[in-house]
Amino acid sequence: MTEAAATTRRSRITPEREAELYEAVLDLLREVGYDALTMDAVAARTRSSKATLYRQWGGKAELVAKAVRHGKPGAFADDIDTGSLKGDLHALTLRADDCEMEQNSALMRGLAMATHSNPDLLRAFRDHLIEPELAEFRRVLQRAIDRGEVRADNPAIQYVMHMMIGGFAARTLIDEQPPTQDFLLSYIDAVVLPALGAPTG
Amino acid sequence: MTEAAATTRRSRITPEREAELYEAVLDLLREVGYDALTMDAVAARTRSSKATLYRQWGGKAELVAKAVRHGKPGAFADDIDTGSLKGDLHALTLRADDCEMEQNSALMRGLAMATHSNPDLLRAFRDHLIEPELAEFRRVLQRAIDRGEVRADNPAIQYVMHMMIGGFAARTLIDEQPPTQDFLLSYIDAVVLPALGAPTG
Repeated sequence: MTEAAATTRRSRITPEREAELYEAVLDLLREVGYDALTMDAVAARTRSSKATLYRQWGGKAELVAKAVRHGKPGAFADDIDTGSLKGDLHALTLRADDCEMEQNSALMRGLAMATHSNPDLLRAFRDHLIEPELAEFRRVLQRAIDRGEVRADNPAIQYVMHMMIGGFAARTLIDEQPPTQDFLLSYIDAVVLPALGAPTG
Repeated sequence: MTEAAATTRRSRITPEREAELYEAVLDLLREVGYDALTMDAVAARTRSSKATLYRQWGGKAELVAKAVRHGKPGAFADDIDTGSLKGDLHALTLRADDCEMEQNSALMRGLAMATHSNPDLLRAFRDHLIEPELAEFRRVLQRAIDRGEVRADNPAIQYVMHMMIGGFAARTLIDEQPPTQDFLLSYIDAVVLPALGAPTG
């Protein structure tokens, strides 16, 4: 689909109505999980026609991924630029408080699990949730390289998302606790910045 | 249960029979997944009585976790001690070839997913799969500290498993590929050793 076509398609519902739909999808997702969530239920809950939902989002996977993206704390914040890599990574973490982080982490974990048996969800998850985060990390890292904080050829640059996802995912398995701001800030200072050879002070 | 009681209980079946049972459990796990796997099916497949299975393992969660542990490449290898942290971490990685790693990674991912709705599995997963790995990393790291390769107060020491799990888990989500030896060796050299301040050369 071209950008122009996308704009035409999107123009059929207002941003307010879109936000309302996403909220309803997130509620359903928390109630029944991805596999049991149906477009019928979304249509009923939001008093929409299924035709509208399919025209607007193409299918369940894209609708759910976009709803989760929409609900992420800071998803629409301006680009973060504090003047240091440590400052930027901390600011990215501090966009969500511990309660939002726990809720979002549960949603992301549920979706990540569901991707294993739903290839279309894996694609939507990557396009709408992983890729935007990667793009944000790339901008933050590029500025750190431009400032001379990180060497452009540091091999850890390509693994920043792997490190961060490890902090999130392993926290539950190893520590039996949801990720918190304190944990993530400590993990960034102990692991991410040293691996990148960036200032930790 | 005391160690003595455990020994008495375990002595009722031979190691060969135990290995045969674990293989059957792994086959069933690959066929139907954790949630659909029943003790009835294990009993039928292995021509055991359910009473024996429960007496020996207590329940499905423990039986499955021990079967996965038993099937892990290198689970029974002697302690690795190559003389350097880089050598030890590489040797741990090289115990499994790419095919074994992909199979094991799929099993571990499936189990990690199932832990979210099965608290008893989360406990068994931690006791029999996470804890032994953590203990192995602790031994490897302690020797690196003793050799002066890593400072005892380096804050990244407590996050080695988080980093490694990130490498495994994010590989699928970000790179859409199973972890391979090449990927993990590169990740260890780019992320884990630098975060620990250990020699990478």
